[in-house]
Amino acid sequence: MIRKKGILIILDGLADRPIPELDNLTPLEYAKTPNFDYLIRNGISGLVYPAAPGVRVGTDVGILGLFGYNPFKVYWGRGPIEAVGAGLVLNKGDVAVRCNFATVDEEFRIIDRRAGRIRSGTNELAKALDGMKLDDDVVVNFKEGTEHRAVAIFRGNELSAEITDSDPGIPAEGKKIKEVKAITPGFTFADKTAFLFNQFIRKSYEILKNHPVNQERIKNNLLPANILITRGAGMKMKVRKIAERFNINASAISGETVVIGIAKIAGFNPVTKKGMTSNIDTDLELKINVALQELEKNDFVILHIKGTDIAGHDNQPLKKMEFIQKIDSFIGVFLDNIKGKDDIYIACSSDHATPCRIRDHTADPVPSFIWGKDLLTDNVTSFGERNFFSGGLGKIRSNEFILTLLDFMGVTYKLGS
Amino acid sequence: MIRKKGILIILDGLADRPIPELDNLTPLEYAKTPNFDYLIRNGISGLVYPAAPGVRVGTDVGILGLFGYNPFKVYWGRGPIEAVGAGLVLNKGDVAVRCNFATVDEEFRIIDRRAGRIRSGTNELAKALDGMKLDDDVVVNFKEGTEHRAVAIFRGNELSAEITDSDPGIPAEGKKIKEVKAITPGFTFADKTAFLFNQFIRKSYEILKNHPVNQERIKNNLLPANILITRGAGMKMKVRKIAERFNINASAISGETVVIGIAKIAGFNPVTKKGMTSNIDTDLELKINVALQELEKNDFVILHIKGTDIAGHDNQPLKKMEFIQKIDSFIGVFLDNIKGKDDIYIACSSDHATPCRIRDHTADPVPSFIWGKDLLTDNVTSFGERNFFSGGLGKIRSNEFILTLLDFMGVTYKLGS
Repeated sequence: MIRKKGILIILDGLADRPIPELDNLTPLEYAKTPNFDYLIRNGISGLVYPAAPGVRVGTDVGILGLFGYNPFKVYWGRGPIEAVGAGLVLNKGDVAVRCNFATVDEEFRIIDRRAGRIRSGTNELAKALDGMKLDDDVVVNFKEGTEHRAVAIFRGNELSAEITDSDPGIPAEGKKIKEVKAITPGFTFADKTAFLFNQFIRKSYEILKNHPVNQERIKNNLLPANILITRGAGMKMKVRKIAERFNINASAISGETVVIGIAKIAGFNPVTKKGMTSNIDTDLELKINVALQELEKNDFVILHIKGTDIAGHDNQPLKKMEFIQKIDSFIGVFLDNIKGKDDIYIACSSDHATPCRIRDHTADPVPSFIWGKDLLTDNVTSFGERNFFSGGLGKIRSNEFILTLLDFMGVTYKLGS
Repeated sequence: MIRKKGILIILDGLADRPIPELDNLTPLEYAKTPNFDYLIRNGISGLVYPAAPGVRVGTDVGILGLFGYNPFKVYWGRGPIEAVGAGLVLNKGDVAVRCNFATVDEEFRIIDRRAGRIRSGTNELAKALDGMKLDDDVVVNFKEGTEHRAVAIFRGNELSAEITDSDPGIPAEGKKIKEVKAITPGFTFADKTAFLFNQFIRKSYEILKNHPVNQERIKNNLLPANILITRGAGMKMKVRKIAERFNINASAISGETVVIGIAKIAGFNPVTKKGMTSNIDTDLELKINVALQELEKNDFVILHIKGTDIAGHDNQPLKKMEFIQKIDSFIGVFLDNIKGKDDIYIACSSDHATPCRIRDHTADPVPSFIWGKDLLTDNVTSFGERNFFSGGLGKIRSNEFILTLLDFMGVTYKLGS
């Protein structure tokens, strides 16, 4: 097989629904995207189900699918993925959990489940929490993630991840932090782990409430990050590295811990740099430049851009539309840089839809395309959810989409002979 | 998530094939359906596989899929579904079987496998059969269903449902009733159960042949319901209630025992009333009014209409077309009643195709649509099998279709986080 290179651009939470303020078009349909449209006109388009029709997914499951895993078979739980992404070592038997720095009152009633989307000082707060000792010789490794996010690893004997979340979900404000419980109670490892999680949460409040970082925040009229809430406990699962399976050098560029975690699980070299913020203010120029460099060195590159999802969650259709246009202009820069090279496939997809009016993920399939040489192009001419109904790729699942790209790249192997 | 309401209208056996007398259109394509067309123009359409491409299904499997079950994983057998639908209590270890009242000669040769589609007196016949004692202390609970249909539950020790049907199938006329056998013979529980089934059939003839109801029928030149034939033996299977899984209040409206049975299995409140006949003469006004009432009280309503299937089995394309038009006019009534409400999704699908010229179910995918707010509408403008080829929903499976509807309603949960 002739081997070619490939880049997959993941526009997180891209797909949307009609927005009255945008003439009942979606932010993507409304946006002017001449560079994407060029690729689409000369490529093959379709709609991609993050998992299956009607199945809503979290970012972790959506991204796992786009790295080639069947999300119904391979699922670590969000905690372990974040832990790996944050650079923590996860051993067999450890329970990893995702945490939020949050703001509560003295009765543990939530004032803000994101501590005002805290953006600085969390490394100092994390240092104060790391190494916490709990009953039964269990020790907690703790590390801050992006913004209000963090991750904890519980290490000790006889732990279980079959426990509930303490995070009361969205909207959380006004609700009390939930007591962690065993999913199936009965004097099991899960009961013990739940007890230790509740101990951990109470201790985090004692440590954080008067921490200098929070004293400073209160002085500046910012919400203090005075407690941790937990969700998505899980344990390590053995999976095949996608990069090894297809014998490719691959890297993944993202500012988001969960993507970095999945990249490591999949055997991709994770690339993250200061300025990649996992938000709408991310340094797109940096990202595109790094992508060009990584594509020089590797067979395959995944470039993840998060801001579209944030704009969806925040119900900001105009910002989403403008951010898409900004991305498009940098796609132009990318195309200028690869001009004349005919050994590169460019693909674009999304981990899930985040419609602005819903402010959460939905199961809608996401517009996706592949551009490159030797493709059977279809009649789709511009980027948009509805334009892609009639695309030549039809409707496939996320792991099938990435396999299709890898097959164009000539790196897949034959089933049979 | 914002929660909205939903109604799924199941038009049983709706899909068809070209009919020469209808200008080579299908009954659905030929019918004038302005109200359905309004919903389709403002909705998203597609074709739904009852199970998978090329797989023909019975009503039970088709309906199971539309209640959200994967029909390859969840299958009770028709007997147990009908038994639950008829209000019988099914215990673990019971064998339930579907029965037809049939007409045979003295040599058990079938004259009519539906006893002239008997419509009255079956409750009296059922009383004479209920509680029948068989060898080995096995007792039969018996209950009549719609028209010639009935259901029996065999209760005793060491029974098995791995047995064949006594019903010779279609066409049955002129054929002898088949002896029930173990599917894998060898002195097993199934051999014993088969012996008891044959005993049950012979005893039913003794009880029924001179029953006053049949004497009266013969006097009136009607075929006597003088025997039972059996098919679809099965046992209870543990499944998750769909209504519980998605934490919704739901009800299902139908005149058909199998739908009522599946509704109970799925945790839906079953609603059936006199006048819902499971045929083309069903009281559609009543059905629509009950649907409106149920939608007030519930998150989700399934409305099942059977007549389209009957017209297909009877090879009556004109009647099928006219019945579709009649349904459409009542959809107009429904729409008038929900005017101004923007929190309702309306979906329409079918459990399978029943093409008139085939007179039986086929595996053809069935035209289906979803209407409501915030949808990415496609270019389909009217109801019909071929119009739906290019629909925005593409081609999905029945359980995926219902999941998609539930996702629009905002009641699904995330896979991952």
